Amino acid sequence: MEIITVSREFGSGGRELGKRLADIMNFDYFDKEIIAAISSNKGLDEKYVEKSLESNYVQTFSYTFGNTFGVIPMLQAQKTELFLEQKRVIEEIAKLGKNCVIVGRNADVILKEYNPFNIFVCADMEAKIRRCLMRAPKGENLTRKKIIQNIKNIDKSRARIREFMTDSKWGSSSTYHLTVNTTDWDIKELAQAVSEFAASWFKRKKSN
Amino acid sequence: MEIITVSREFGSGGRELGKRLADIMNFDYFDKEIIAAISSNKGLDEKYVEKSLESNYVQTFSYTFGNTFGVIPMLQAQKTELFLEQKRVIEEIAKLGKNCVIVGRNADVILKEYNPFNIFVCADMEAKIRRCLMRAPKGENLTRKKIIQNIKNIDKSRARIREFMTDSKWGSSSTYHLTVNTTDWDIKELAQAVSEFAASWFKRKKSN
Repeated sequence: MEIITVSREFGSGGRELGKRLADIMNFDYFDKEIIAAISSNKGLDEKYVEKSLESNYVQTFSYTFGNTFGVIPMLQAQKTELFLEQKRVIEEIAKLGKNCVIVGRNADVILKEYNPFNIFVCADMEAKIRRCLMRAPKGENLTRKKIIQNIKNIDKSRARIREFMTDSKWGSSSTYHLTVNTTDWDIKELAQAVSEFAASWFKRKKSN
Repeated sequence: MEIITVSREFGSGGRELGKRLADIMNFDYFDKEIIAAISSNKGLDEKYVEKSLESNYVQTFSYTFGNTFGVIPMLQAQKTELFLEQKRVIEEIAKLGKNCVIVGRNADVILKEYNPFNIFVCADMEAKIRRCLMRAPKGENLTRKKIIQNIKNIDKSRARIREFMTDSKWGSSSTYHLTVNTTDWDIKELAQAVSEFAASWFKRKKSN
């Protein structure tokens, strides 16, 4: 079984890359499908589940106890449960035993034992702003400043969730097998190039 | 003209990857050749030039002036001269107008106007230690601890030189077009996969 995981900066086109990779390689594709499964299993609204899993996982509170002062993480019970359910759903997907692409959700760490091919997708800030503008819903007129702020906040949140859940750093080169910068690419052509690279990697893996 | 630059973590196999890429793609290859040219132009010993260009570019000294306390960079005249000569040599290489691979030396920034394909090569620490052990000169019996220290120091130095000379961060994903982790690869096979990726990138660039 071959699994590709795609982690990505917000606005980098990582989701489109993942979808196109799945199409080219004839792999199953999982992204929002995971949210739908969690919502259905837990009887919760999809939008609510999505929001919960995308915001910072950890809230901290400061305490003093005798002479000791410290900060401990306070887990929100329902969020914790949603993250565990997400992990379970991703493990279920892997157990299906079919080739697949999974976008986001730290699937690279959750499925480590399956030795997936892990991709990180990034882009220059200007390219990410262009993509956000292009994909903005009609009538949404965010300022450039606000868009940059959104991009930074979402990525910061992704980094923090990852740091809390795993011992590997979000976006750091050696965490992934391949890191691609989408800036100069048409995603369709990039997906073709990445699919060939991934195929070589899986071939190498098999021969080991 | 097509230029590929290879930046790399110490012990990642980046140099071998660069050499093999040049072989596969029939590109000229520049690495130690740059040192040789600088040495010859300046009438200096190659080992000396190499060492000078690999250690931190900047020494700082602290000062107090009236009520002000600060730290300012102190450039060593000869080092500065060597870095300028290195820049000149790299620009001369590009002016030859031939397809080439250049390893290290921030060539990606120096040749920015040529729009080269920029690769960063990394690997897991364990893989880098194995490679260092494999390539150690006979009789050199460094401890594991010492090897890790060497790797970290050399990379730190590379990062500092880059930060001083350029406005882009060494090793950071979006600085490069492609970042590859060599850990699970045979470099020969990896070079083949990267050469195909690079060829797609140049094709895309031409069609733009």
